[in-house]
Amino acid sequence: MRVSKLFTKTLKNAPADEVAKNAQLLIRAGYVYKEMAGVYAYLPLGLRVIEKIKQIVREEMNGIDSNELIMTTLQRKEIWEKTTRWDDEIVDVWFKTRLKDDTELGLGWSHEEPIVEMMKQYVSSYKDLPISLYQFQTKMRNELRAKSGIMRGREFVMKDMYSFHASKEDMDAYYEQAIEAYKRVYDRLGIGNDTYVTFASGGAFTKFSHEFQTICDAGEDIIYLHREKNVAVNEEVIDDAVKELGIAREELEKVKTAEVGNIFNFGTQKTDEMDLYFTGEDGKQHSLYIGSYGIGITRVMGVVAEKMSDEKGLVWPENIAPFKVYLVSIGEKGSTKADELYKELTDKGVEVLYDDRDERPGTKFADAELTGIPYRVTVSDRAIESNEYELTNRGDGSTAKLPIDDLRAKLLELV
Amino acid sequence: MRVSKLFTKTLKNAPADEVAKNAQLLIRAGYVYKEMAGVYAYLPLGLRVIEKIKQIVREEMNGIDSNELIMTTLQRKEIWEKTTRWDDEIVDVWFKTRLKDDTELGLGWSHEEPIVEMMKQYVSSYKDLPISLYQFQTKMRNELRAKSGIMRGREFVMKDMYSFHASKEDMDAYYEQAIEAYKRVYDRLGIGNDTYVTFASGGAFTKFSHEFQTICDAGEDIIYLHREKNVAVNEEVIDDAVKELGIAREELEKVKTAEVGNIFNFGTQKTDEMDLYFTGEDGKQHSLYIGSYGIGITRVMGVVAEKMSDEKGLVWPENIAPFKVYLVSIGEKGSTKADELYKELTDKGVEVLYDDRDERPGTKFADAELTGIPYRVTVSDRAIESNEYELTNRGDGSTAKLPIDDLRAKLLELV
Repeated sequence: MRVSKLFTKTLKNAPADEVAKNAQLLIRAGYVYKEMAGVYAYLPLGLRVIEKIKQIVREEMNGIDSNELIMTTLQRKEIWEKTTRWDDEIVDVWFKTRLKDDTELGLGWSHEEPIVEMMKQYVSSYKDLPISLYQFQTKMRNELRAKSGIMRGREFVMKDMYSFHASKEDMDAYYEQAIEAYKRVYDRLGIGNDTYVTFASGGAFTKFSHEFQTICDAGEDIIYLHREKNVAVNEEVIDDAVKELGIAREELEKVKTAEVGNIFNFGTQKTDEMDLYFTGEDGKQHSLYIGSYGIGITRVMGVVAEKMSDEKGLVWPENIAPFKVYLVSIGEKGSTKADELYKELTDKGVEVLYDDRDERPGTKFADAELTGIPYRVTVSDRAIESNEYELTNRGDGSTAKLPIDDLRAKLLELV
Repeated sequence: MRVSKLFTKTLKNAPADEVAKNAQLLIRAGYVYKEMAGVYAYLPLGLRVIEKIKQIVREEMNGIDSNELIMTTLQRKEIWEKTTRWDDEIVDVWFKTRLKDDTELGLGWSHEEPIVEMMKQYVSSYKDLPISLYQFQTKMRNELRAKSGIMRGREFVMKDMYSFHASKEDMDAYYEQAIEAYKRVYDRLGIGNDTYVTFASGGAFTKFSHEFQTICDAGEDIIYLHREKNVAVNEEVIDDAVKELGIAREELEKVKTAEVGNIFNFGTQKTDEMDLYFTGEDGKQHSLYIGSYGIGITRVMGVVAEKMSDEKGLVWPENIAPFKVYLVSIGEKGSTKADELYKELTDKGVEVLYDDRDERPGTKFADAELTGIPYRVTVSDRAIESNEYELTNRGDGSTAKLPIDDLRAKLLELV
């Protein structure tokens, strides 16, 4: 894409009321636009990052035989009343609205109940099980405060997956598969090394659920961590965990983290509450086992922006950067040559953001750094003359000077 | 995809309260699930159709240099008050809700005002223009009645595009480009021959706007049509149009249609109402010209379901079918051979829905027809023995018997 065709601009300042570093950077670099606290539009660059994160998650969820679908934002009161979760005293993040005939509706803050309700149409026999399904849904949560930028939104994108099983054994096996798929997701997103499977509070059915917590100063959680043993415990269950797991509290390090995913085993609780049953091989009616698995897509983007950035701007990991290459043209011959290179690279599938604007080199370099694209290539009159082209790595700041053929070969590896 | 891994099932009956043919068929075939009137979830097959429609629209909008972004559902009252459109007397389809501190919010039924408001951040000089941007957004409209299935939703997906120009000439030129892009969209969606650029009511700035109306018995509009002259006029402006265009009313045919797109030239009205200006080459402040361009993504899907279906079920055009091939295995050897063929075709990029279930051939054939995948391939023990494989065309019902090599060659053309 040509920067001259992009409608966004980098900005000197984020809005004065924006206190979160992730949103400040993302707004300044033209990735997001703040509609109101906790509600952000995703501009062309931001949408590309979201879609890349989604695609990684999609591939891993498809890999464990989950089916993608999309549920609705508008939700019926009756469904949520079955589990008492319509009540604002019990769920305090509802946005509610009304039809013309005054029927109350809710805006989906979660989709557990509607998914279970829907499954009544598709599950009757043990032959229909197991089932796993997921969606990328825009969730609405009426948060009292929303000061963490895109890390805690009132409107945000979440991947939520649900699995349905005939037996505890099958449920447990899938739960383990999901943990492994989640680990692959965070590895591919570039935050695997700082993300820990963390014991968190369970429910009626299990003592613990599992959260995926990423070390992050701007996070809202505290976990206790044993890096060598790879054990992590959410503060909320530390007393129980110390007892259960036989670990000494003193050995654990207290760190600030952001929850980037969670998985939860409901057992048969939801089935029973919502009257979803199946007929077993024995001809009798049985309860289903249900698991629920979330990943905050926009939150992950915020966490990466917080963690992978410096005083100059964002530093995207290659897998989720909106473009791989930021191509800067300088001078007249530089522009002609850069046009050629841009065409060649994009034709061959390299994702290039081409700064073809009539701006000073300093402005282009600063924008390249703020935008955080992994590789910057500079095509100037001087580079052409000397056949020495600058290839700058945004991550470590290093610059190599390469003849055009070597440069081209290196860039084509980025497909 | 294997049918055995798909959680949906074909259903004998749609819900009793579903009166629209499009939704009845789509529910029975497992494409959509009815949450409530006008609110439908899109199941795996349905989501694939939506994504294909979106991708065609995306390519054509990118082709006229428009930038994709995604705005928000939650919207601020102040922005809409600027144009008086917050008022429920003026816009009667608002869903509204409240933050915890009682601040009123609206749910986006359109995004014109928020987009114009946002552009204040990105447009200041004539050098920033022209700009075109678009999104695929889930719109919320509090319709009094919602009885047309997915053709008129309370929650539905729309592509809305907006363009901003420094002059009337530039606006008009882009408007023409958009008309041509829209024509390409409907051609690719398979409804080009039945879709007409139709004169409809304009606004303060222009006498007429343009709608794209598709001939459809279940549509809610009436147009007057001259097929040979390729002139179409919405009933609402027929008197004006007869005068303006110099056509005789008697020459026109009255037909029922569904509006699948519209484009609208606002002139400088919105700019002025919302105080969005730019500095021209002359150093003075000027009003921007704005165009707005919509395509109802889910509505198009509904229109195709209405038009392209028969007593056996859906008949998708190839470009938007969820899969190109419905592969049916019959018998033991048939299954082994079908497994092989499925693997080979999917590896090579052919989209195959493989009915690998342990069901009777009649059930599989009926499901293939209801689902409406363009080509059905039958791999049975008998086919293997005689080297005569059935390839059935869902559109015309014709069946060819082909040796395996010819069959394979034909199917590989579907990539």
